[in-house]
Order: sequence, then C-alpha cells, then structure tokens
Amino acid sequence: MAKKKQDPDAPKSGKDLARKPRGFPDRREALIHAQAEMIDRVTSVYRRWGFEALDTGAWEYADALGKFLPDDDRPNAGVFSMQDDDEQWVSLRYDLTAPLARFAAENWQTLPKPFRRYAAGPVWRNEKPGPGRFREFLQCDADTVGAAGAHADAEMVAMAAEAMRAAGAGDGEFAVRVNTRRLLNAVLEGVGANSDTARLTILRALDKLDRLGEEGVKLLLGPGREDESGDFTKGAGLGTSEIDRVMAFAKAGRPTRGETLEALGRAVGTGEEAEAGLAELTAIARGLEAFNCPDTDVLFDPSVVRGLEYYTGPVFEAELLRETVDEDGNTVRIGSVGGGGRYDDLVARFTGEKVPATGFSVGISRLATAFAISGDIETLNGPVVILNMNRDDPTEALKLATELRAAGIRAEAYMGSSGMRPQMKYADRRGAPVAVMVGEDEIAKGVVTIKDLKEGAKQAAAIKSNEEYREARPGQFEAPRSEMVARIREIVEASE
Amino acid sequence: MAKKKQDPDAPKSGKDLARKPRGFPDRREALIHAQAEMIDRVTSVYRRWGFEALDTGAWEYADALGKFLPDDDRPNAGVFSMQDDDEQWVSLRYDLTAPLARFAAENWQTLPKPFRRYAAGPVWRNEKPGPGRFREFLQCDADTVGAAGAHADAEMVAMAAEAMRAAGAGDGEFAVRVNTRRLLNAVLEGVGANSDTARLTILRALDKLDRLGEEGVKLLLGPGREDESGDFTKGAGLGTSEIDRVMAFAKAGRPTRGETLEALGRAVGTGEEAEAGLAELTAIARGLEAFNCPDTDVLFDPSVVRGLEYYTGPVFEAELLRETVDEDGNTVRIGSVGGGGRYDDLVARFTGEKVPATGFSVGISRLATAFAISGDIETLNGPVVILNMNRDDPTEALKLATELRAAGIRAEAYMGSSGMRPQMKYADRRGAPVAVMVGEDEIAKGVVTIKDLKEGAKQAAAIKSNEEYREARPGQFEAPRSEMVARIREIVEASE
Repeated sequence: MAKKKQDPDAPKSGKDLARKPRGFPDRREALIHAQAEMIDRVTSVYRRWGFEALDTGAWEYADALGKFLPDDDRPNAGVFSMQDDDEQWVSLRYDLTAPLARFAAENWQTLPKPFRRYAAGPVWRNEKPGPGRFREFLQCDADTVGAAGAHADAEMVAMAAEAMRAAGAGDGEFAVRVNTRRLLNAVLEGVGANSDTARLTILRALDKLDRLGEEGVKLLLGPGREDESGDFTKGAGLGTSEIDRVMAFAKAGRPTRGETLEALGRAVGTGEEAEAGLAELTAIARGLEAFNCPDTDVLFDPSVVRGLEYYTGPVFEAELLRETVDEDGNTVRIGSVGGGGRYDDLVARFTGEKVPATGFSVGISRLATAFAISGDIETLNGPVVILNMNRDDPTEALKLATELRAAGIRAEAYMGSSGMRPQMKYADRRGAPVAVMVGEDEIAKGVVTIKDLKEGAKQAAAIKSNEEYREARPGQFEAPRSEMVARIREIVEASE
Repeated sequence: MAKKKQDPDAPKSGKDLARKPRGFPDRREALIHAQAEMIDRVTSVYRRWGFEALDTGAWEYADALGKFLPDDDRPNAGVFSMQDDDEQWVSLRYDLTAPLARFAAENWQTLPKPFRRYAAGPVWRNEKPGPGRFREFLQCDADTVGAAGAHADAEMVAMAAEAMRAAGAGDGEFAVRVNTRRLLNAVLEGVGANSDTARLTILRALDKLDRLGEEGVKLLLGPGREDESGDFTKGAGLGTSEIDRVMAFAKAGRPTRGETLEALGRAVGTGEEAEAGLAELTAIARGLEAFNCPDTDVLFDPSVVRGLEYYTGPVFEAELLRETVDEDGNTVRIGSVGGGGRYDDLVARFTGEKVPATGFSVGISRLATAFAISGDIETLNGPVVILNMNRDDPTEALKLATELRAAGIRAEAYMGSSGMRPQMKYADRRGAPVAVMVGEDEIAKGVVTIKDLKEGAKQAAAIKSNEEYREARPGQFEAPRSEMVARIREIVEASE
C-alpha cells in the first residue's frame, strides 16, 4: 500500500473517515470469547500455582521500560512513545516484564518476597504490521521475583506445560523447550566470538535453525547466505571446525532430558560457564521430576535462543506442534506461543542490588487463534429474538423479552423498524436459536408462535418449492402463552 | 510536585528510575478481582439482553474519533495523540462509543441491523490526574446502532438499572436518571439562549445543581458566582423571570415518572421541541413499564445534562446513592457511575446517512472501588505454602505442592532462599490458609506438619509469653503423609 501524506486538518468525510490504523484489528465475538477463555484457562493455572494478580498501567516512563526488544539495531523503533506534559518521555508497554521490574523495584520493601505475580493484558509494539502480525496483542505472564534457585525456573516451565494443556493442547501437540544462555555463552567463547556483533550474528543464525534448516544456518555461521529473492545476509565468518562445534551443540537435543544432558556434556566441553550451564539444566531436570513433568512436555533444546536481551540464564519457549486447520481447510502452523527465562539483572537496573527473577509469557492472541480456528472452543448461541409485529406499539414484544430474561433466558425484542422478512433475517444472522412472534391473532388466542430456527433450517433444506415452504412453516408451532418460557427453554438447552 | 525538566537521554538509576507516570496506578489483586467481578456481572446482564461482544483496538485515527469531550474550550486536550509512521495522527480511544461508530460505519453493509454490541476495556484521557482521577480507566458499554424508537432508549436505562443491581446495589441504593436534550433545547430557546456560548453556560450551570445547590446555580444563570477561594465564574446573564423558568424546569423531578411528566408538561410550555421531548419521555415511560422497571430504579430528572457533545435526544445517568464506608471508617460518596444517551448523528459523520443509535456506559473502576472498599466483594484466599526445610534440595517441598495442586488445591512451594521465620512471615503476608512443613524428622516418620494459620492466629492472640507460644504451637498438628491432602482441604474449604 503506497503511503499517502495527508494534511491532518484536511476535512474528511464518508468512508474515507471510517478507517482504522493498520495492526489494530477489530475483534468479533467468536475471537473475543476464545481469547477470554484462553486467559481464564491460563490464569487459572497460574493461580493454582500460587501466583497473585498485579496490573500496571499502559504507559510507563520510557527510561523505566528500557530498550530490550530484539530489533536492537533500530534502538527507538518497536515502541509507541510520546512526550508527557512534563516533557518526560513515556512509552506504551511492549511486554509485561519490564513494568513488573519497575513495580518490584518501586515497592520491594513492602512486598512478600519472593514476589509472585501474574498479569494478562494488551502490549503494544510499533512494528510494521502484516498478516497475523499486529501492533497490539494480549500476553499472559507469570513471574517470580526474588528467587535464585533453578527450581524456580523448573516451576516456570512445568507450569507453562500445564498451561498449554489447560489451553487445550494434548499429548504431543506442544513442547516447552528449555536452554540456558550460559551454555550458549560457553559455546560462543569456545569458537572465539567475543564481540557483541559476532555473538549476535551467531545467535540469530541459530534462532533460524527451525526455518532455514542445518545447511542454511551453516552458511550464516560461515560466509553468509543468499536467500530465494537474491538478498545476501552476511555470515559470522566462522571456520569449518568452529561451525561444526556450534552445530554439534545446537543439535544435541534428544528425546529425553537425561539424554540431552549427556549429549550436551560432550558438546560444550569444560570451562566455568559450561559447567555452570550444565549444573543449571541438571537442577532444572531435578525440579521437573518433582513436578511430575513428562519428558515429552518439557524438552531441553540447545537451539533455543529467545530474542529479548534481558535474559541472563535459562530461556524457555513454548511451541504448538499440532497442525491447525482453518475454515477453508488450510493447514496453519502456529509455532511459538510463548516464552520466557531468567532475568537476574532487570530489577538491579533500578535498585542497584541484584534481585534474581524468572518468568514465562503466553501469547494469548496466537493461542486463541489456534484453538478458535480449529473449532476447539464452543461457539456461543445468539439470543432468542422476539419479532416486533406492531410498529406503533412494541410493548408486547418488550414484555415477552422481559419474561424470558427473568427466567434466565438470553432474549431481546427486535429494536429496528423493518418488516417481518428483515426481522427473520436478523434473527438468523444473530444465530438465534428461537424466534418468537406475537401478533393480534396470537394475543386474541392467548398464544405465541415459536420458531425453532435450527430445526426449521434442517426441515427447510428438504423442501423444494416456495409454496410448499410457506405451507409447511418448518420448525414453527403455536404454544399457550403460559407455556412459552418452558417450551423455549427446551429448544435453547437442546441447541447448546 | 514541582515540574522538573529532564533530558530524556540523561542517565538514571536506582529509585529515581523506578517510578511511573501520574494517573496510571498499579492495581493489586483485591482491586483487580473487584473490577473483573464487576465486568463479569455487568456484561452478563448485557449478554442476557441480547448484546454481542465487539472489541476495537486502542488506537484510532484522530479524525475518526472526533472531538466530543466536555472540555471543548481546550480542543486538543484530553486525548493521547501521536503521529503514526505514515504521518497521520492517531489517538488512544477516550471512550468506547466513538470507536463503535467508526466500526459500524466501516462495516454497516455486513452487520446484523440493528447492531447491538457490548464492550469492556480501558479508555485513556490525557487530563490532569488527581485523587480518584486517573488517565486510564475501565468502561463497560452496550449500544444499539440502527434503532430510532424510544423503546430502544427505554431498554438502555432498564438494562442499566439491572446492571446496577447485578453489581450489588439494592433498593434505593442507586438511581438511573433520564432526561432529554430536546426539553433542554426547548427551555434554552424559551429563555432566548441562542448562541452556543449562552447554551453551554446554562447547561454547565444546571450540571452543577447537585454540587452547588439552587442558590449557586441561580447565580451562575444570572450575574455570576464567586466561590470560596474568591474565584469568579461569569454567569449566563439571564434575568429573574428567565432564571425562574430554567429553575422550574430543572426542579420538575418528582418521585414517579408519571408525576414528573405532568410537572414537565407545565414547566416547558408548548412548541415543537418541547412536544417532541415530552413525547420521547412518554414513550420511554411506556417502555419502562413493559420492562417491569420500578419508578425508584429509573427516574425522570430534568437536571441531567451529560457532558459529551454527541448526544441528540435522551440522556441517561446512573448514580450510586448508597454511602460507602472505607477501611478507615470514612464515608465515601461515589456519585455518578455511568451514563449514556442517544447519538443519532455520530455514525452519519462517516456514512452521510443518518443511523440512529443509543447506548449506555458503566464506569467499572468507580463501581469496583465502591463495592471493594465497602467489603461487598469476597476476598480471595492465598495459596497453601509449603515451607522449604532443605535449602540444598527443595525436592520434597516441590513434590508436596505438586500433590496438592493435582488435588485442585491452590499451593506453592516457597521459592526464596531465606530461613524458617521469613518463610512463615511470607505465608502470612500471602494470606495463606495453611503452611506445611516437612523436615528430615517428618520424612523419617512418614508425616507432615500442618499449620492452620487462621486458627493459629486466633489461638496465639490468647497466649501471653513467648515460651508458652513455642510450647503450644497454636493451630499446628502432625498428620500422616497419606492424609495430607484431605486434612488441608478441610481447612482450606472452611476458610473460604
């Protein structure tokens, strides 16, 4: 889409005015319901594991948030920022971790320690929007601030696995992958990557193993790689034996955590950082055993890197493995639906004192999309619609709706001013299970006409002519007014 | 607080960095729970009345939102705005109505008509924050777009009353007040207020009847008024008989809607606008009867004005009348907790075609505060805390927590590295109903030590000496490991 410069004060009207900024999609009921359901399922797990709720505001001081987004070669990009009235820069939060670090530092003296909180809410990234890539999306996080032990990391990943199961993923349909920055550091040291640039180039190459495969990553570790479009990405310039060492590490993942630990022991060699990393994963493995966490739910995977810069030790990534098929029959691969890790220095930015912390974040939008498009979340019934047969005086329709609602049935009287056919069409489009009609005839006879719309649609499918349709009035019957609630309740309950 | 100009790039550290912009308070669990509970109660009512969910993004094009906030003498104030990458101005939504109008206009062809949607979410106002006055707060709206009839307005106010009851307000503890801009217009015409400035001055004066009383408002309608601090507010300059006419109108409210309609008939005189206004209220009264809405829940009150500029007919306001007493025994008057009205021209801004609409908005933050501080919302139990008696190997504590959670009990193992006393203090501060201890002795004997913290605190209050306390170990007992879950479940359930 070509950019069009516009005078902000230029008059606009009509359809030209009714538009929204890109990356902020409107969400209709089915998706809202799926997202709320996912938040409920995930936060229920967080709560059961003892975490308490904390919400922070949308805006934070820009310097308090810090700059930890992956695209660090564009330092100011990625964040919505503006100058506040007092001329200080404020930014919309880009994740839920940085505001938590600010809160914990600000209130450390009065908090229960460790401070264990969960939060669910929108975050904003001022990035180029694209298909499935939004500038506003929902995250749902849990963090333990003030816990140094590897069992706190083990708790995060075991809980993440439980959250994935609660969200609806079954055996083999997801994996939480664990690595540690310490082992990555050890390998980087081992191949002589000492500058930040060299380290970053290698980490980014590893991060693409899933997408580019082994040969592609090898090129990125070595001389560089030309992609299908002819674009050339500069490589890390490692020699063959260094490349082999990095790849041996990245491919040390095995089906069980124990086997991976053994393979890693061989791949990373000795040295302080390597041993610290292995000890960390060994302690996490012990914690995972205590949490009864199967090897298939949580894997050790040395190729996991994670983009955010504040991680200092273990890093986690949750991946949805199930293939999701959308309405059009297309297979959709959702991939990563969450991640996290240990960030021991983030609170220290504020306090000067080290406050070790670890956390996990679930991407609710992606998870909800995955389960909504595969039909794993029940769809909601529309309301019972009382048609309005008397345009001058809607009282009768209002009364019937009131009576149904008083009985706990979702119901509305038609509020527009159109005739019968548009009213029936309205009931259809709302997914109404039942339409109710009360005209003068019905009032005189003390009855209501009830139309079971699902049954009606089924019967109508078998009817050939319009005339026959009008005769048959499929799904439609009269009931005494006193039986209205009971008869409608039957149909509504059967349709749920 | 004095303003301090700061270089955004100046280095900051420590506590100076750990601060948040004013007007964006952090919310802890009790308030979050109260707000979620209120949203659930109110949206359940909206759903039962047939409305469907729609969420729009936080950012909208500034021109699409329009400028309808009350402070219209500061046209650009009140809204958070910035220039997007394509140089168009975008703003954070300041209410949920303007984005709905944009959505309805953008999608009108494909929507069920009328379009009935509800939404709950944050809105942002870039105003000067103060006590109880935030720059981010939660609203919960329902709107019917494409419905011209007064029964659609009646539905809004009857539903608002039901929402207030669902929120927790009982008989006489709230009132939804209804007026119409048409009657206000008739009165303004009648006293010769034809300029926008004159109209606005009179409406603002009326809006203060509640706060300043009759004499104060009379001064504002006439020569002007000096407040306690000596500040002078210019008056509307009406003569005595005009002032009496306006006041007779404003005070025409009676205990029942029927009586008010009669009193209004006398106060507004004749004329097209007066008759249209009376007809509107009469039709709303008929609708309210059909909805079984008592006179005490919904009143006609001619002093209701509402600040937002897009209203074209009926306007509504919900007020909490119950006196709320906070923890310190202070009486807190919450006042207005919602409002709405008919806005027939808002969608026409986009489409050129008139699309009549009416809606209601509940201020969730205020409502939650009201019911949270008066203790009307249950407080949540903390988790069962398993103390960690073995710093080198927390495995036993992790296993016990796993066992409790598997039984559906909210539980966590202590994740810090402190000793027993801080761990007990931690359990207390988390509001834990139970602490569990398993040391080497317990493991050898096959038991766990369970401490009922509420019972313990009760018993401890009766104990005089430290020595006696240590002897008694109030609320503490041993149980076989196999009985742990059952014994703890008993205590947890009793404490809920």
